[in-house]
Amino acid sequence: MTRFDTVRAVQWRDDGLYLLDQRLLPDEVVYLPIGDHRSAAQAIRDMVVRGAPAIGIAAAYAMALAARECDGQPDWRRCLEAAAATLNAARPTAVNLAWAVARQLRVLDQLEPGQTPFAALLAEAERIQAEDVSANRHMGALGTVFLPDDCGVLTHCNTGSLATGGYGTALGVIRAAVEEGKQIRVYADETRPWLQGARLTAWELQQDGIPVKLVVDSAAASLMAAGKVQAVIVGADRIAANGDTANKIGTYGLAVLAHHHKIPFLVAAPTSTIDFDTPSGRDIRIEERAAEEITHIKGRAVAPAATQVENPAFDVTPAELITAIITEAGIVEAPNSERMSRLRPR
Amino acid sequence: MTRFDTVRAVQWRDDGLYLLDQRLLPDEVVYLPIGDHRSAAQAIRDMVVRGAPAIGIAAAYAMALAARECDGQPDWRRCLEAAAATLNAARPTAVNLAWAVARQLRVLDQLEPGQTPFAALLAEAERIQAEDVSANRHMGALGTVFLPDDCGVLTHCNTGSLATGGYGTALGVIRAAVEEGKQIRVYADETRPWLQGARLTAWELQQDGIPVKLVVDSAAASLMAAGKVQAVIVGADRIAANGDTANKIGTYGLAVLAHHHKIPFLVAAPTSTIDFDTPSGRDIRIEERAAEEITHIKGRAVAPAATQVENPAFDVTPAELITAIITEAGIVEAPNSERMSRLRPR
Repeated sequence: MTRFDTVRAVQWRDDGLYLLDQRLLPDEVVYLPIGDHRSAAQAIRDMVVRGAPAIGIAAAYAMALAARECDGQPDWRRCLEAAAATLNAARPTAVNLAWAVARQLRVLDQLEPGQTPFAALLAEAERIQAEDVSANRHMGALGTVFLPDDCGVLTHCNTGSLATGGYGTALGVIRAAVEEGKQIRVYADETRPWLQGARLTAWELQQDGIPVKLVVDSAAASLMAAGKVQAVIVGADRIAANGDTANKIGTYGLAVLAHHHKIPFLVAAPTSTIDFDTPSGRDIRIEERAAEEITHIKGRAVAPAATQVENPAFDVTPAELITAIITEAGIVEAPNSERMSRLRPR
Repeated sequence: MTRFDTVRAVQWRDDGLYLLDQRLLPDEVVYLPIGDHRSAAQAIRDMVVRGAPAIGIAAAYAMALAARECDGQPDWRRCLEAAAATLNAARPTAVNLAWAVARQLRVLDQLEPGQTPFAALLAEAERIQAEDVSANRHMGALGTVFLPDDCGVLTHCNTGSLATGGYGTALGVIRAAVEEGKQIRVYADETRPWLQGARLTAWELQQDGIPVKLVVDSAAASLMAAGKVQAVIVGADRIAANGDTANKIGTYGLAVLAHHHKIPFLVAAPTSTIDFDTPSGRDIRIEERAAEEITHIKGRAVAPAATQVENPAFDVTPAELITAIITEAGIVEAPNSERMSRLRPR
């Protein structure tokens, strides 16, 4: 059995945090050293690191950086809470960010005698990353049931090692299916405006030798009509308690198209992406990003100056369009509030 | 009443053909002189000129250029037929190309005494262009019935003056509605891979002061779900006898989304775009274009080297998803073969 998993976007090494700068991929593979929690927040805002689980892991390590900064402060606990607030404000939609930061704050309540906040937070960040990789491998193995032995799979954005602690969510399911010997032909939406599909997913799958064809986002419908797609699989930035799912702009349209063509529409995400405090998709705040993401590509204008833009980074797919939500704690088919509650932590 | 119509993409002047180079817009407004029919065919292939009606008009003028080239040849008629074949082969999907070239060949059968082929073909090309502008104004006036007095309209690709003899098809309907005093908010899909929406539609509407917001193609679904879109209107590259419509890649997906959200989906095109010899969309050849259109933007790579691509330039929208086809000869609602036959030339 082949085992795929070549990239780590978030790394702690030499006593410091390094983030693979995803703005430069696939041209350059550069790990940016992140010296303090403010630089980490900026890196999250600027999308040096992106992907809901990877953002959460980066923020967890950033809390360890903050512990070093707060060391010796008279009120180190308040200092760390301020850092937590700065990190939480970096991006509003992905819930894994708030989830990881909250988990780190809870660690501070349980310090063992003689343990420094830094050591405790670093250990917890490493645990969060290891758990994420393990969750991805587990959901990957569970999710392959939805992929026929020989099939085309359409995916959107990047949900692989680059977006997570490692292995990936939706790409994890694809990796697991290939590891099982299935013949999977991946169609990767290029995913405007940030081109995660072109720059990241195509690159990541090529590292693993998994067949991938790049298409423009708007080609999805005709691929489906031509019978080339047997499943659509995406990740998630926040899943509401009823199964409504916020994910990269374009996801909702794919769900409608998959429904029209009677193709399974699958969401793969760790349970840390589920926000039981958010009743439905209507309650999820959608981040609006800068016009330049659309009007400029690689620094060059592709639209007239002063063009007005709407640039929502995410959209919400209602649960009734989702065939199944695949998590490390199990699969929820035809998700609704009742069935989702089985995944609620006790 | 305001009257909009500022641009002519195809111009005959100083005894020669000039094409507004749409590859350079909106950065530069450059008219390329086209000296012979082969250069015209190349310009069509390279998308110096694009848009089904504009391609037809450019080809009609190119036949006049060919008449000059063939002048004095022992078999000038065969020479012109060879030029016609070269032009027809430039792009396969838009039927207006073949339609205009065939119309020019028929002119050769009806030369008046003393009239040169060149003079006759130039006069006919000018007639084709004038008829196209007039058809667009007429279908614009007919089509406004589908646009509420105050509404958001989503459009795809470019269907304006740049894509036609002038005024535009889908953009013509929008222009006519604004001329009637309606409050129209245009959402322009950027239209990957060639970015006709960003580079051409946004530019053209800004010339006329019509409010336009640019969005990525995959944002259409969430705009519809948010109630911001009251109609979708697009052009066509070829309409089959049963109303199935080939148009820019992404059109079919918009039709499915409009159907899901119960929003009218409108096709605006001159009758020269209807191909009664093509029974249904299954019979329309879809042009596959170069991978570089997707992997490179403005000459810079946005995907890893050697990335595999599928790049169909068009897709086919089945007639049952089309609310109405708007032509200069009338509107066909809920198009099918029987209702479309009313538009058949007698």
